[in-house]
Amino acid sequence: MTDRSDSRLSRRGFLQAAGGTLAAASLSSLTPPAAAQVPDVRLPELAGKQVGFALVGLGSLAINQLMPAFARCRQAKLVGFVSGRPEKAKQLAQVYGVDPKNIYGYDNYERIADNPAIDVIYVVLPNSMHAEYTIRALKAGKHVLCEKPMANTPQDCEQMIAAAKAANRQLMIGYRVRYEPYNQALIAYARETADAGPTRIILADAGFNIGDPKQWRLRKQMAGGGSLMDIGIYALNAARYLTGEEPVAVNAMTHSTPNDPRFVEVEENITFQLRFPSGILANCASSYGVNFNRIRVSKPRGSAELDPASSYTGLRMRVVRGGAIEERILPQRDHFALEMDHLAGCILKDAEPLTPGEEGLKDLRVMMAIYEAARSGRTITLS
Amino acid sequence: MTDRSDSRLSRRGFLQAAGGTLAAASLSSLTPPAAAQVPDVRLPELAGKQVGFALVGLGSLAINQLMPAFARCRQAKLVGFVSGRPEKAKQLAQVYGVDPKNIYGYDNYERIADNPAIDVIYVVLPNSMHAEYTIRALKAGKHVLCEKPMANTPQDCEQMIAAAKAANRQLMIGYRVRYEPYNQALIAYARETADAGPTRIILADAGFNIGDPKQWRLRKQMAGGGSLMDIGIYALNAARYLTGEEPVAVNAMTHSTPNDPRFVEVEENITFQLRFPSGILANCASSYGVNFNRIRVSKPRGSAELDPASSYTGLRMRVVRGGAIEERILPQRDHFALEMDHLAGCILKDAEPLTPGEEGLKDLRVMMAIYEAARSGRTITLS
Amino acid sequence: MTDRSDSRLSRRGFLQAAGGTLAAASLSSLTPPAAAQVPDVRLPELAGKQVGFALVGLGSLAINQLMPAFARCRQAKLVGFVSGRPEKAKQLAQVYGVDPKNIYGYDNYERIADNPAIDVIYVVLPNSMHAEYTIRALKAGKHVLCEKPMANTPQDCEQMIAAAKAANRQLMIGYRVRYEPYNQALIAYARETADAGPTRIILADAGFNIGDPKQWRLRKQMAGGGSLMDIGIYALNAARYLTGEEPVAVNAMTHSTPNDPRFVEVEENITFQLRFPSGILANCASSYGVNFNRIRVSKPRGSAELDPASSYTGLRMRVVRGGAIEERILPQRDHFALEMDHLAGCILKDAEPLTPGEEGLKDLRVMMAIYEAARSGRTITLS
Amino acid sequence: MTDRSDSRLSRRGFLQAAGGTLAAASLSSLTPPAAAQVPDVRLPELAGKQVGFALVGLGSLAINQLMPAFARCRQAKLVGFVSGRPEKAKQLAQVYGVDPKNIYGYDNYERIADNPAIDVIYVVLPNSMHAEYTIRALKAGKHVLCEKPMANTPQDCEQMIAAAKAANRQLMIGYRVRYEPYNQALIAYARETADAGPTRIILADAGFNIGDPKQWRLRKQMAGGGSLMDIGIYALNAARYLTGEEPVAVNAMTHSTPNDPRFVEVEENITFQLRFPSGILANCASSYGVNFNRIRVSKPRGSAELDPASSYTGLRMRVVRGGAIEERILPQRDHFALEMDHLAGCILKDAEPLTPGEEGLKDLRVMMAIYEAARSGRTITLS
Repeated sequence: MTDRSDSRLSRRGFLQAAGGTLAAASLSSLTPPAAAQVPDVRLPELAGKQVGFALVGLGSLAINQLMPAFARCRQAKLVGFVSGRPEKAKQLAQVYGVDPKNIYGYDNYERIADNPAIDVIYVVLPNSMHAEYTIRALKAGKHVLCEKPMANTPQDCEQMIAAAKAANRQLMIGYRVRYEPYNQALIAYARETADAGPTRIILADAGFNIGDPKQWRLRKQMAGGGSLMDIGIYALNAARYLTGEEPVAVNAMTHSTPNDPRFVEVEENITFQLRFPSGILANCASSYGVNFNRIRVSKPRGSAELDPASSYTGLRMRVVRGGAIEERILPQRDHFALEMDHLAGCILKDAEPLTPGEEGLKDLRVMMAIYEAARSGRTITLS
Repeated sequence: MTDRSDSRLSRRGFLQAAGGTLAAASLSSLTPPAAAQVPDVRLPELAGKQVGFALVGLGSLAINQLMPAFARCRQAKLVGFVSGRPEKAKQLAQVYGVDPKNIYGYDNYERIADNPAIDVIYVVLPNSMHAEYTIRALKAGKHVLCEKPMANTPQDCEQMIAAAKAANRQLMIGYRVRYEPYNQALIAYARETADAGPTRIILADAGFNIGDPKQWRLRKQMAGGGSLMDIGIYALNAARYLTGEEPVAVNAMTHSTPNDPRFVEVEENITFQLRFPSGILANCASSYGVNFNRIRVSKPRGSAELDPASSYTGLRMRVVRGGAIEERILPQRDHFALEMDHLAGCILKDAEPLTPGEEGLKDLRVMMAIYEAARSGRTITLS
Repeated sequence: MTDRSDSRLSRRGFLQAAGGTLAAASLSSLTPPAAAQVPDVRLPELAGKQVGFALVGLGSLAINQLMPAFARCRQAKLVGFVSGRPEKAKQLAQVYGVDPKNIYGYDNYERIADNPAIDVIYVVLPNSMHAEYTIRALKAGKHVLCEKPMANTPQDCEQMIAAAKAANRQLMIGYRVRYEPYNQALIAYARETADAGPTRIILADAGFNIGDPKQWRLRKQMAGGGSLMDIGIYALNAARYLTGEEPVAVNAMTHSTPNDPRFVEVEENITFQLRFPSGILANCASSYGVNFNRIRVSKPRGSAELDPASSYTGLRMRVVRGGAIEERILPQRDHFALEMDHLAGCILKDAEPLTPGEEGLKDLRVMMAIYEAARSGRTITLS
Repeated sequence: MTDRSDSRLSRRGFLQAAGGTLAAASLSSLTPPAAAQVPDVRLPELAGKQVGFALVGLGSLAINQLMPAFARCRQAKLVGFVSGRPEKAKQLAQVYGVDPKNIYGYDNYERIADNPAIDVIYVVLPNSMHAEYTIRALKAGKHVLCEKPMANTPQDCEQMIAAAKAANRQLMIGYRVRYEPYNQALIAYARETADAGPTRIILADAGFNIGDPKQWRLRKQMAGGGSLMDIGIYALNAARYLTGEEPVAVNAMTHSTPNDPRFVEVEENITFQLRFPSGILANCASSYGVNFNRIRVSKPRGSAELDPASSYTGLRMRVVRGGAIEERILPQRDHFALEMDHLAGCILKDAEPLTPGEEGLKDLRVMMAIYEAARSGRTITLS
């Protein structure tokens, strides 16, 4: 007897999408068949070797995003944990089928060197710890995926890059939106010139109204800076990946609400302007006081924007062309699954990831210039 | 050394949401803090007993939706497969950590009776097979979750209900949208009367442009009917769950494109009208020829709609009130995870599920009346 | 010295539009140049003869819509009033530069025959008075523009048509949306087949929550019927102009809230289904209890909708095509100016208007069938 | 016999709005009754004295916007023209009922002093002519409504203000959006603090892709500057009226596409940042190369935006609050009618208009600082 439910396939495009893809609005009266075209049933690939990931830091991001994301991965596999809380790690290991012998503490972290099941260390720790835990993992012979911002200073970034080179291991920074369809579509729009003309102006905002005044993000020593380092980096990075250029001049203004206990050490709001070699101007805003998350690319004969642009899900894209405002319905993919699979693929093919350590370093350098511009009231030139 | 990454929690609301929840637009400039409030980090519950599910039928829905959904469940756990293709089942078992001894074929299906790891059989087969595989599972002492439509005839539904009663097991129909926040919010809107007044008119559409003419959905014997049975049931079910009433009269018109090889045995389009005891009128449309998926509730002082209303993800809700058109941003949850967890919880608490067999039977009875109305050109009265 | 302000022209497309046109969103970041292309400066045409209009009935529609609309007309000119309130008429005449000798009462209405300045009588009276005042105007040798519904019965319509023929004068019904860009674009979409395929299903709703229970619209004798006659006619007319066909079968259901003083004589809600010769099904709703005003055209490879579809301004159009939901930004024109100019042009060219008396009669005949279907619980066949 | 059509009133809210108001989406399923509430039938006010306006410059704005707008005014009345093209003026006079003896050329412009029918001169000329024609009108004893930007230099503005003072006449600048509901609602939102908290960041863009390279707007001598003077002034003015404060510091960057014949004398793009005394930061962009027109106000617990914000019609407002994105449907009024009526009312009551000459001067001063900041690469401090 054959499995007849395979014939369900014909309808599935209208209700969903395959391979970890979520086709927003796929059944909608407002969604045409094209939006619903999806690859054939995904039988997870077993032939190819899988790449084992261990997570360092079992906080919210790790538990609520990364662990379930592995169920959408093709080549990245969750195999280990590094945590200071063994009980928690053990429980999670049971749920996600992680072998208890792949659980490490911060004290025996170096022993991962001896564990062949672990190929990659994913560093999900406060910013100031990125450099240390990345370098130690590299020295232990592991590849590293490190959350952004890469570190608190360009100097730390340079050391991390050097360590990767010395160890001959991959070092990738977790710029997850580079791996998902909406931001990729915006990049394609920004760089295309035949249709709407060259990009002239980019507007990018990223901010949220931060909560608990006692969190590490508001400690200069741990976070490296304020909203710019944590969230404004999305706007900066977007201006860079949309243009494919490095900024040559920067202006900035900053303001923090007086007497707000959250902003004693780090800035609340910072607006910054970037000039790119091609003449594109970017006007950006970063905030720990208000919520926004939008990127817009403006051209002579059209514009496109993402809003939200960087949240984990629910991204939306609007494109203006010839008399119409168009919402593009793209697959809503799990950013983390894509990001982790990207690194897994790079490791298997021995290729450099799209967002290597150098990418993180470049953002750090511009952020330092932005702070300098705000401080000095002068346009800062970058070489 | 403590796990400092826990302090990431404070930001997470703005980037995501916990517990399988996807907070659309959560970082958006257009999303206020309230939308981002999410429960604390979800440490999957291990204390409570988990409920083992075996899937019958390894088609697209099972592979692309159900299997990954278990990673978002708290109490439902994937433990087994029933399939006519043992190789495929074995591969999938490896990926999802399913014990190979919990894999069955259609020939040894009854032996699940002896497998205590399997609590629930989830029937994901063509409509005409629902009754048989449901009843056999119930007889084997298993609870059943059966996809909709429940069966091809009210008579089959009645036998399934009787079998569940005889076996003292739960029988739930997979009306997944009843378990997700958008449809629940629309129900709340429809039944509330103080604010916008009582519901007067419901408009509901569900349809898609069906593909391959050879698929089982277009075979009368296997599918039981055409678009109404497969997809129009979403519109009908919505009219019923929004009103909380059973229709008393039905009108209908049907049309199939002549000479279209897809519509030789079953109908393409069918529009139907329902009158409810309270006087609410519902105007519904079902199609295998066009894409739509919208529900609207109209009241004297406002209206609300979902579009799309039933797709696996990307649901959107708009509410009109006092001079404003409001898009409500609710958590985008995995419908299947919620549905499966609901049944798991019911089993653990020995409670009846929200959508038991009786719910499926009621839809079948109205669908038969709709077909009769279309055939006879008369208003059909339901008791 | 030349008038240099002419050079302002180059910018105007971005801020506005010419000739009575309102280019919604014209300066918007979301509006491309194409949307802003407008005809050259409109120097109102003086060369061609203008056509004089007298309004019969100085209510809200006449005062707030029709009178200011003449400032956007090219060939229709406001020249007279017929009213039972001479003081009001005199005041308005002063404001709009109407010659006081062109003011008539209902008692000396026939004397318009002797006034060569008046070419057209625009009948803006309650439905039950349409036939009488139209026929009297035609007998006086005037062309007539009559508001919809044309009359309370098909018989009255037939007499009006006969009177126009006998007088050799134009009789046009005020189906204003036929003359404005949004509905015209939807008609083009509905009838085009190469791109999205043939129209399969039309959904159309029109309704509002009616106020004062004492108004003439709620008196059967004056209004001829309830919501269907007054507002549902927009949905019916849309189904007819979108298909370009006449319905062959009708189903309907009606409901009025019990004990509501507004619905003692006429119906509140009525849903109706239409079958067209080509197989298109239309599902329509009409209401005096809730607000809606939407038309949707569904095809195999796309759909388009207007919402609102018929309000005096602010119409919006959404089109679905290949993975995108597109809002089309069309010029927002004054419907009444277009409608009146259309008739003026027809008179000058001795051509039949797009919406002659026969168009009004056809709607009346279908509305009678809809009422009959609701009453009898049977599908009514139309020849 | 009474005029029964008055009873049409009860329905009109759903189809329209009174008094020059356009209620966008008023019949929509998505528009509740509240949006449709409109003032009673507008019988134009005749009792109060009307104020006579003469237009100087018969270009596109005058012909296509201002002349028809008078049909929506209550107190402003079109009575005269000043133009270098007498034939054109005569034709237009006939259409709009302007007395031919109220037509002037630029040579006999001063003779308006002797014409008591003309109370106000509306200056609709290129920027460089504003000062001259305003001062001459004031000296002739007329009130003046002058388009924005007020003049090419702060010095000219000061002379215009002095002339108004000397002549004891009103001088108003045509900041039309201050008089229409959408921008007024955004001001109310920005200044309210109890609900969403204080304004923290303002983002404002205004730009269009300018056409003909030979037009006066691209001549430095006639226009005074580039996109900033012409269109960026909307963004600057918005930042000022939203905060109700004057900026204390300015940053800017500018770029013009090399070898583009349009930008030989004036700038194409300019981005600028403003710091306000309360700490609000505004990030603004102005362009002659791309289309945008958006204003956003960001607060700790919500945000609001207009897009488009300044076009003649079709403005849209979105407000974010507690988990919802809300489109506010406000009346779409004729900005010019409101603006002209405002000045008429001020003259009749001898009150200062909301946007007097001083308002225009303030914008000019900030614009000079913006240019200086762009030139110097330094933050410019304003006192």
